[in-house]
Amino acid sequence: MRYDDTSGSESSMTESASKDPLVLFMPSGKRGRFPVGTPVLEAARKLGVYVESVCGGRATCGRCQVEVQEGNFAKHKIVSSNDHISARGAKEERYDRVRGLPEGRRLSCSAEILGDLVIDVPQDTVINAQVVRKAASDRVIERNAAVQLCYVEVDEPDMHKPLGDLDRLKVMLEKDWGWKDLLIAPHLIPQVQGILRKGNWGVTAAIHRDMDSSRPFIVGLWPDLKNEMYGIACDIGSTTIAMHLVSLLSGRIVGSTGTSNPQIRFGEDLMSRVSYVMMNPDGREAMTIAVREAINGLIGKVCEENGVDRTDILDMVFVANPIMHHLFLGIDPTELGQAPFALAVSGALQYWAHEIDINVNRGARVYLLPCIAGHVGADAAGATLSEGPYRQDKMMLLVDVGTNAEIILGNRSRVVAASSPTGPAFEGAEISSGQRAAPGAIERVRIDPVTLEPKFRVIGVEKWSDEEGFEEEAAAVGVTGICGSAIIEVVAEMYLSGIISEDGVVDGAMAQKSPRIIPNGRTFSYLLRGDGEQRITVTQNDVRAIQLAKAALYAGIKLLMEKQGVDRVDTIRFAGAFGSFIDPKYAMVLGLIPDCDLNEVKAVGNAAGTGALMALLNRTHRREIEGMVKKIEKIETALEPHFQQLFIDAMALPNKVDPFPELARIVALPEKKVASNDGGEDGGRRRRRPR
Amino acid sequence: MRYDDTSGSESSMTESASKDPLVLFMPSGKRGRFPVGTPVLEAARKLGVYVESVCGGRATCGRCQVEVQEGNFAKHKIVSSNDHISARGAKEERYDRVRGLPEGRRLSCSAEILGDLVIDVPQDTVINAQVVRKAASDRVIERNAAVQLCYVEVDEPDMHKPLGDLDRLKVMLEKDWGWKDLLIAPHLIPQVQGILRKGNWGVTAAIHRDMDSSRPFIVGLWPDLKNEMYGIACDIGSTTIAMHLVSLLSGRIVGSTGTSNPQIRFGEDLMSRVSYVMMNPDGREAMTIAVREAINGLIGKVCEENGVDRTDILDMVFVANPIMHHLFLGIDPTELGQAPFALAVSGALQYWAHEIDINVNRGARVYLLPCIAGHVGADAAGATLSEGPYRQDKMMLLVDVGTNAEIILGNRSRVVAASSPTGPAFEGAEISSGQRAAPGAIERVRIDPVTLEPKFRVIGVEKWSDEEGFEEEAAAVGVTGICGSAIIEVVAEMYLSGIISEDGVVDGAMAQKSPRIIPNGRTFSYLLRGDGEQRITVTQNDVRAIQLAKAALYAGIKLLMEKQGVDRVDTIRFAGAFGSFIDPKYAMVLGLIPDCDLNEVKAVGNAAGTGALMALLNRTHRREIEGMVKKIEKIETALEPHFQQLFIDAMALPNKVDPFPELARIVALPEKKVASNDGGEDGGRRRRRPR
Repeated sequence: MRYDDTSGSESSMTESASKDPLVLFMPSGKRGRFPVGTPVLEAARKLGVYVESVCGGRATCGRCQVEVQEGNFAKHKIVSSNDHISARGAKEERYDRVRGLPEGRRLSCSAEILGDLVIDVPQDTVINAQVVRKAASDRVIERNAAVQLCYVEVDEPDMHKPLGDLDRLKVMLEKDWGWKDLLIAPHLIPQVQGILRKGNWGVTAAIHRDMDSSRPFIVGLWPDLKNEMYGIACDIGSTTIAMHLVSLLSGRIVGSTGTSNPQIRFGEDLMSRVSYVMMNPDGREAMTIAVREAINGLIGKVCEENGVDRTDILDMVFVANPIMHHLFLGIDPTELGQAPFALAVSGALQYWAHEIDINVNRGARVYLLPCIAGHVGADAAGATLSEGPYRQDKMMLLVDVGTNAEIILGNRSRVVAASSPTGPAFEGAEISSGQRAAPGAIERVRIDPVTLEPKFRVIGVEKWSDEEGFEEEAAAVGVTGICGSAIIEVVAEMYLSGIISEDGVVDGAMAQKSPRIIPNGRTFSYLLRGDGEQRITVTQNDVRAIQLAKAALYAGIKLLMEKQGVDRVDTIRFAGAFGSFIDPKYAMVLGLIPDCDLNEVKAVGNAAGTGALMALLNRTHRREIEGMVKKIEKIETALEPHFQQLFIDAMALPNKVDPFPELARIVALPEKKVASNDGGEDGGRRRRRPR
Repeated sequence: MRYDDTSGSESSMTESASKDPLVLFMPSGKRGRFPVGTPVLEAARKLGVYVESVCGGRATCGRCQVEVQEGNFAKHKIVSSNDHISARGAKEERYDRVRGLPEGRRLSCSAEILGDLVIDVPQDTVINAQVVRKAASDRVIERNAAVQLCYVEVDEPDMHKPLGDLDRLKVMLEKDWGWKDLLIAPHLIPQVQGILRKGNWGVTAAIHRDMDSSRPFIVGLWPDLKNEMYGIACDIGSTTIAMHLVSLLSGRIVGSTGTSNPQIRFGEDLMSRVSYVMMNPDGREAMTIAVREAINGLIGKVCEENGVDRTDILDMVFVANPIMHHLFLGIDPTELGQAPFALAVSGALQYWAHEIDINVNRGARVYLLPCIAGHVGADAAGATLSEGPYRQDKMMLLVDVGTNAEIILGNRSRVVAASSPTGPAFEGAEISSGQRAAPGAIERVRIDPVTLEPKFRVIGVEKWSDEEGFEEEAAAVGVTGICGSAIIEVVAEMYLSGIISEDGVVDGAMAQKSPRIIPNGRTFSYLLRGDGEQRITVTQNDVRAIQLAKAALYAGIKLLMEKQGVDRVDTIRFAGAFGSFIDPKYAMVLGLIPDCDLNEVKAVGNAAGTGALMALLNRTHRREIEGMVKKIEKIETALEPHFQQLFIDAMALPNKVDPFPELARIVALPEKKVASNDGGEDGGRRRRRPR
């Protein structure tokens, strides 16, 4: 809600209702009336406006800073805001002298409400939408970290009341902060007496208030005021490990980093890693060590780059697919490689970081999101949390494409999930010229429907291939292959230009029309780039591989749509790296996705990682996704007799049975092929499906 | 309650009340009516009669065996008990074939009630009083261990319901055993899937239901039926570490052992160990390692001696004085060596055993009783739990004498506690011929009041020193010194025979009467044994040391009696090794203890260890002592201005101001000395107090 929208209605309230000053907090728009003299922090707390505070109102941590922007709701009177808020008191003056308090900034624990106020909570104390998604968004995530810093001044020991140091610390944490039944991380027990004395009885405790064991824990303790701590949100992908380092006090992403998963040396894809475990007695342990070492290395890197001490990391959230999840936790993933794909553990888990060899603060906790099913992991749960199909009425399709595609379909009333075995084709594997998205890889392709000549773009080269100076630029990086997104485009363009039929056959007759169509054994290929030894072609087998992959994906989607009883979805979210580069139009041309308003098809990047970030910054999201995962209906495609038929029906381009009104609006499909989608040739096409 | 007492009243109930059969459980005496066909185990559960069961009613563990002793409440009819209980069914017959079921024994999960029954729960399933105390006692401790073994048969994985193995295990533990919100020890997470498959989906889980963090934990998991587990109760004394190994299923003490505390090499007494820590940077760590190694060694010893695998130890309870407690936990004890004697932690604590380097089952927990005050530790809490002054109306004095004496005084309405610095004299230290209680030490002394000749007994020698053949026997072990109990006796006997005055001066005039009184510089000594080089004397300084120690103890007791407003106590319990050997009569002659019926003065051995055992076998005792320790009023003698006067008043024998009616009944005090206790010589006597 915006200030403009509310000031009018509120000023009438001023006239009619209580005479207590009205206070409006921005950007949340929350407002309420408070007696004159109420500290701004107290007003914020009562309205549920998140304003951090470590020092407990002593005006020393400076975390509760706000800006008093306007002080006037009255329509016909101009009042200086200075009259509506108390003047800077001694505590704020002291803070200003010691640490500096910018003009216009106030410490909300000290500043008192005297009249109507508009209070801006600075952007570094609410989650900026930018934090969550690179794309602009108005989503504001309320912070409610699992760990809180609490400064207290503990009573000195007293022979009359022989309570231990730790026990007196607990008394004060209950008295000042309301923590009841506190426990303490065991490693701190021998340290308490020294820290209390070093801080001259003033200490800051980190309280973990989201322990799986229910009672709050003292997980960190420092002499004097400790005014910053950090968290890590991490997505352990089969290929890439990605990580955010976040200030748990401001919610700001301090840095992000990533690295390739070192388990790749044991096997490129998930199943080959499972095989490695089955074949090698020490395979599981070696991969567990490798991924933990990589994560420790990444933490070191992101901390060093941002001047953060890794022992200031107090909380961590991890997402991963089931096999990465199991290997990270030291669990044998073999069962996940064969029916019934039994997870060793599916629920959310918590650890002390050191229990799984993660080297951060000794009191740091690790939270792992729950897995949805044997093929739909904690990463899919993270993406579900991030995109929240269950938070809306629209029917949302959420797809994360990898070796398996995780598919979530649903809305507020019901969510279903499945995994479909797309294979690695979408990632460029099993494609003759396929390669990872890296400099030198073709990432965009267009084919002239008349001349059948291609133009393309290469990662690391600014120009399109038909632009002046392309070759000079390209020479620097080379043109080495086709990455996943371009595979989709080139096959779709081949279809749109009539090079392949709706059932995926490269039309040999076209060879007479263009030298780009070249024979390749008993089939034909399309020559995308032919200079010298570095020939890049799209073969019949490549087309078949993409057809198989897209059929698997579409069949999975279709199965879930049937479960939901819908013909069409309202909105589509592509998660993951593949989704970020794919052009929705081509996805629809290929029949990867069902009919949908293309404006509602969006790539959301690493949604799994965003979900981890949300669970890191706000512990209520942990309960939210734990509850949701229990409710999601898991569909096992292998157990659905109908799935095979859906798969066969989805082999054609864009597919055999479903109408695509949206597609017809945005692209001219080859007329002949669209025509042949009608009528009675189904049987024949079916017989010609790939061997 | 005995069967004889109840049968009459119950048989009248039979006539008047419900026709359901009446079942009486022995030895608890609990009874109730149950419909025909109710399994005996279910009846026991409903009455709160403790009958163990691991297999969950599958008749495989055999833990629920009972004996059906009688089946007849009717006064005028003799009924065979066989008519009142179901015949052995197929499950019991199978159990009998496989593991043997003695005649008369039944599995209470299978045997059904058909008529009135008297059920004997065999002694190995209730805590026999012998278990708790060597002395006969009718105390029965109900068992309610913190850890329970629960056998379940888990659903196999199902693709339709992709819950993880662990999650399905939890489902079944809730369904069969009622465990909600179970957590699991992290080290088990990677093991669950293998154990489930090894047990063909039948597994036994150890559930810890007394975690400080509130939620129950799976702490152990085994394939198939696991039918035994153990616990350790341990008292870490400054001098000796004592340990019981207990079956947590039967409550039976499997073995007991002890060893000297290896920290002795860093310092004989507590304060010298604190000094060692202060003087040596690695001192604290060295002593922590030493005591943990000793405990691990003891566990190994007691397990090996009794054929127990140490990994079958699932729970442990420790008591210790504050300095041992801190050193065991790796906490610097320096603060305990100086005012204000601040404990680093006073409340009860829990750890995973491995967190403090104790090598038992990885899922074993350690519980430490709370400390009462800086000088009144978890050992005193254990003794308080064992003797339970707060459980009775009588005013109980509980004393544990060591370098410090811990003194607890109270009853149901109020308990006060203090520590008094007795010094090491009672343990034979700072005594010219003092030594530890060991072969060769004089342990009993009598002095003929006429001839002043002594007779004594030596540890390791059967005969008294005036008996025929004593010297031959004594030659084998030597007569090397006086141990603590004999110090008390010899000083008391010297007083009773007039060798020392009521103010403790060895009367030099007596030298004319007996050659046993010999000059020693400016004072005189008593020659207890004079053969050759091995002279054993009691010097004036020795008497002074005992006077100081007893004055400290008595002043502490007196202070607490004043707090309670009593002149006399109803009952006295001496805990610890010293108390086990001391003769109450001599304790009273010396004025160590206040006036009390001597029949009510008892030594209770290692009451601290007994308290640990109680907390091990019944977790409700943990709550009991935690609550009690909070209520106990701690008196710091150093802060009581009155204490010094009490101390001075207690220097005399038996003491200066208090009447001892009991003493006058049991022993003839030297007439002159008793007389001099009256009248106006106080000032003079006070001036003659030891320098």
